[in-house]
Formats: sequence, C-alpha cells, structure tokens
Amino acid sequence: MNIYRYEQNPLITPADVTPYHEGYEVIGAFNAGIAKYNDEVLMLLRVAERPVSGDPAVVKAPVYNPETNAVDIVEFRTDDPRYDFSDPRVVRDVRESTGFAYLTSLSYIRIARSKDGRHFTLDAAPFVYPSNRLETFGIEDPRVTQIGETYYIYFSAVSPVGIGESMVSTKDFVTFTHHGMIFGPDNKDVLIFPERVNGKYYALHRPTVKSTGSPEIWIAESDNLLYWGNHKHLAGLRQDMWDSGRIGGGAVPIRTERGWLELYHGATKEHRYCMGALLLDLKDPSKVIGRSDKPILEPEAEYEKNGFFGDVVFSCGALVEGDVVKMYYGVADTSMACAELSLQEILDSLGTRW
Amino acid sequence: MNIYRYEQNPLITPADVTPYHEGYEVIGAFNAGIAKYNDEVLMLLRVAERPVSGDPAVVKAPVYNPETNAVDIVEFRTDDPRYDFSDPRVVRDVRESTGFAYLTSLSYIRIARSKDGRHFTLDAAPFVYPSNRLETFGIEDPRVTQIGETYYIYFSAVSPVGIGESMVSTKDFVTFTHHGMIFGPDNKDVLIFPERVNGKYYALHRPTVKSTGSPEIWIAESDNLLYWGNHKHLAGLRQDMWDSGRIGGGAVPIRTERGWLELYHGATKEHRYCMGALLLDLKDPSKVIGRSDKPILEPEAEYEKNGFFGDVVFSCGALVEGDVVKMYYGVADTSMACAELSLQEILDSLGTRW
Repeated sequence: MNIYRYEQNPLITPADVTPYHEGYEVIGAFNAGIAKYNDEVLMLLRVAERPVSGDPAVVKAPVYNPETNAVDIVEFRTDDPRYDFSDPRVVRDVRESTGFAYLTSLSYIRIARSKDGRHFTLDAAPFVYPSNRLETFGIEDPRVTQIGETYYIYFSAVSPVGIGESMVSTKDFVTFTHHGMIFGPDNKDVLIFPERVNGKYYALHRPTVKSTGSPEIWIAESDNLLYWGNHKHLAGLRQDMWDSGRIGGGAVPIRTERGWLELYHGATKEHRYCMGALLLDLKDPSKVIGRSDKPILEPEAEYEKNGFFGDVVFSCGALVEGDVVKMYYGVADTSMACAELSLQEILDSLGTRW
Repeated sequence: MNIYRYEQNPLITPADVTPYHEGYEVIGAFNAGIAKYNDEVLMLLRVAERPVSGDPAVVKAPVYNPETNAVDIVEFRTDDPRYDFSDPRVVRDVRESTGFAYLTSLSYIRIARSKDGRHFTLDAAPFVYPSNRLETFGIEDPRVTQIGETYYIYFSAVSPVGIGESMVSTKDFVTFTHHGMIFGPDNKDVLIFPERVNGKYYALHRPTVKSTGSPEIWIAESDNLLYWGNHKHLAGLRQDMWDSGRIGGGAVPIRTERGWLELYHGATKEHRYCMGALLLDLKDPSKVIGRSDKPILEPEAEYEKNGFFGDVVFSCGALVEGDVVKMYYGVADTSMACAELSLQEILDSLGTRW
C-alpha cells in the first residue's frame, strides 16, 4: 500500500488550540469529522480540555452542568482507595470491573477550516458544545454526512448514564438543530451513509455489549435519519489479526463501483489502533463482500506512536478525489494528520476473510 | 397494599409443559407476555428447555443453528479451567469479567390459553421459535402490545453477538410476521405504549451499559414501531432502596387519569426482584411524576422464593378491569403466577422520590 503522509503532519496539535475554558489546558484536538463546505475543507475537531491541576496528588474531573450551563469540577485525591487513577483518561470506581465513573477531560466540537486541506485555521469558539444531561461528560468523535445541502453531524454523547450517539444538523456550520440521541447507550462510531439504498437510509454503529459479544460493527436502517431499526450484526473481530480486540466504523461510507467502501478502525487487545477497509454490497450494505487482511494504515510515524494515548490512528472522515483518498485521522488521541491513499489500491487489497 | 394471589398459583409450572425437543427437560415456563384475544387470556410463555445430561461432570449448552434449523449441543466438562459453571444458567469464560459465553438452556415462546384467567391449556408446539442468527441462544421475556387488531410481540433475542430486542406481529396468534431487531444490543425489557402520544409511539427500554451507568430505564419514540430514536434516560436506580441494583420495564404501560402507569421490576444487588410502579406524564411520558417507595409485590410465597432462580417476581404483562389490576408474573425464573391489586391503591401509594 502506497501511503503519502502530508509533510505538514500533524496538521493540528493541542498547542494550536486556545483553551475555551479558563484554567484549562487543551490535551487533544483529534478524531475530527470531515466536511467539504463551499471551497473549504472543514475539520470538526474533538477538542478535549482538562482543568489544570497544580497538585499532582489531585485529579480533577470536569462535568458540564445543564442547569447552569457551566462546568463543575469534581476533585479526587490520588490516594483515595475508592478510585483507580491508573488510566489518565478516566477515574474508575474500584468496585466496578468495567467502565469509568468520571472522565478527566471534557470534549466538544470545534471547527478548523482550510483552503488546501493542509493548512488549517481554528475557530475561536466551540461549534457544538454539551447542552443537555446526556452530554455532561462531553461529546466525542464527530462524523459528518452531507445529504443534499444539509450536513448531519453525529457524535458520542457521554454522561453518567452511558455513551450514546446524538446528532445535530446544519446548513452553514454556524447554527445547528439538535436532534437528540439517535442510538441509545452503549453505542458509538455511528456512520450514516450519504444516500438512500433501496429507499432506506443506512447507518453503521458499534454497540459496546456487556452480556455477551464484543465491540463489533452493526448496521441499521431508517426512513428519516432520526429513528433507527432492523439492527443486524455486520462484521466481527478476527482472532490473531490486527482487528482482534475491537472494531468500529471510521469514515463515512464511500460509494465505489465495487461496493460501499468503509474505512474502519481495528485494535488489538493491546490497544494498537490501525485503519483498514470493509467492502459492502452496493444494493444490500448489510452484506460484507471484502475486508482488509492487513491494515491500510498503521501507527508508524512519531506523532502516531507517541501522545496522550499512543499507537493510535483513528479516522472519522475522508475526502475522495478521483483515485485519491484523503484520509484525515486522529493520532495518539492527541492531534490530527492526513494521508493520501489510492482508492484502486485499497479495493484491490481486500481479502475474502471476514 | 392489598394483594390477592390466586389460589391456583402457580398457574403453570415446568411440569405442565411437554418438552418440544427430544432429550430435553423443561426448566422454566415463566415471564409470560399477556394478551386478551377474543374471549381468552393468553400467556405467551417463555419456555426454557435444557438438554438432559446423564453425567454430572458434563454441562450442555444448546445453540440454535439457523442453517439447519436444528439445535446443536456444545458440551463442556465441569473441570475445564477455561470456564466457570457456578451460575446454573450460563457458562462463563473465566477471562471475561462480565457476561456469559453460552446459556445452558434454550428459550422460545409458547402460548397457554384460558377462559377464566386461572386455568390454562398449553399449546402443543412453540408459537415463536428462534429463526435467525440473532436468536441462536434463544428468545426470552416476551411482551405484547395490542394496537387495533394487531398484536406486537417483542422479546430479548440472544446470540453470541449480544442481547437485543426483536419483534413479530400477529392478528391471530397462529401466524406472524418477523420485523427484525428493533433495539440493538445490549437491550431488553422493551415496553411499547398501546397508543400514540402527541402523534408518536413511545417505548420504554433497558440498555445494559458497560462503559458507565447502570441497568436503568430509558424511553424512545417512533413513528412506525420499527425504527426508534430520541432516546432519553427515564428512571435510575435508588440507593439503599428495593430497586438499588437494576430496574427494567415490566407490564405494558396502562393509561390512567393520573398518568401512564408502568409496573416495573427492581432488584437489589443481591438479585431480589420485586415489582413496583412508575407514573409518567400523560402528555409527555418522558417525565416521571410518581414512583413506588416500596414494592407493590415482593417474593413472599413459597413458589416465589424457591425455584431455578429464587426470590424473583417479574411481570411482563397485566390486565386491567375497572379498579382490578390482574398482574401476571414469573416466579423464581420457573413458573407463572397472578395477583390482583387495586389500581387506585397503587396510584395512591406512589411517592415523590425518583
């Protein structure tokens, strides 16, 4: 696979982002949804901000308060035996075997704009910010699907009651309408197809299951983008392969002559995140007809290997121009990068094991 | 609370049910959805059957095979260190901190019919039986909502990829149409309201969340009963109360003058399951306006305290005649019972803590 990583990588780093909250530091500007709007490329960045802690023995957890529209801070002492602070992203309740009690940063969506797709200028303020009780721990990992002149932006809505997927829509990237939670918890990595197939809208989604099963990709259908059903399991983990630990949709599905191309992320149980591809039947996207035996992109560059959470490449959006796939992707849960790949080469590389 | 348990309780026990599968034993006939059809009361029983094991050192797990339409049996030796057999209902993978790898029984839906609501005659064959790859571990805990002349029957669809909620519909309880999975995994305890509210259908549902949060009740809306969205968190656990461990919807919501009455189950962390009530705003069912401080029914009778999984009362359906609520309920994950309560007394008992 020929991969051309931009010389400008990383395109946006936390150092490029002025914190929105006073007394906070930006620790991530990553996992951006991508849109073409007028003559510009927009990155809808997930910006993660953390309250600055002067005391290494104190961990702070920011929580959006929908009643005051401000962010409260919950403080923990690192010697508190009720909590586990070993993962810098979260505060865990030691009585719980899975999951988290608090996040140590608050994420929201902020736009960076570019004429050439390489040099970006950041908006001064957030675009989509937590606004209700399903978003009190923040909103994460947006994707953007353009249908006609409307851009649908959907993201993980995180709160103490779970992680679901909520959606807003905009025509101008200035104002938007909030459509509530479209996939209930636990769910993330939703990808809405850019056109109807056989009269139905389709979306990939990634339930996080507790009873049995693994973090795998499902597909659902809709007739209005707001209500979803006919859920089917689409693609699972593959033992001893690069996507043996967890998988989830990445970029908005791309229509090709051979099928719907989905650039998805897969991780090993050791949390090494790579990007690969799934090919879905053009007329029935619930059928997988091709899948990458090997990743199309894996963490190799320094900015992909090192950061807040290293060894991660994680795309939430790509642009296609002729044979060129411009895959934008978050690196190390920290910054944004872009690589160009050949559409034909990706399609030719797909294996038959799924 | 005045409770009149039928003298005929338990109304149906496993001993009343001839196994459908050769070489199996019926271990449960419980958690039945309830319908009035013509002049009869129908119990849509969850019947659980288990392969008979002649050898106490062997545990058998039945798995429906959609390709052959037969049930395969996976055998385990109880000294296999990879698995944990301590819960008789499941086989656990010792590497996983939550959930299960296999079930030790296969459930399906079978109808029992009655003229008086107390004496039931069982159908000879299943009504709804696993039929696809989302149902290979069985179908469980059906509920029935009548809308016009159509009965919508929805149930937990269990398979190695998770537990979701699937739906069929019937007009005659002989043939039915399968509508696929309406709530993706992990989800159960769905309850569809019997009429539109402000032009929308509503359903309660109970996601099982892994990332953060607890097994609690959510509400969603729809315009066709098949596709669901606008998910909102409705009611949570209450510390140190009878519903501190998990909650989920029970009977189909009942329209009263004071609001939508939902008879729901709550359990402590020690898995003692009781029934209580929630009152929801008539015009906006996403608003809770009353909730039981104490259970309206708790496991007290011998058949409620002892069985396959004791100390459980678990209703999936009730009939209302004037002031009389005939609450049918599964007991001890084994059999079916019924108790009559006063609608007025339930409404008057609702507290203001939720």
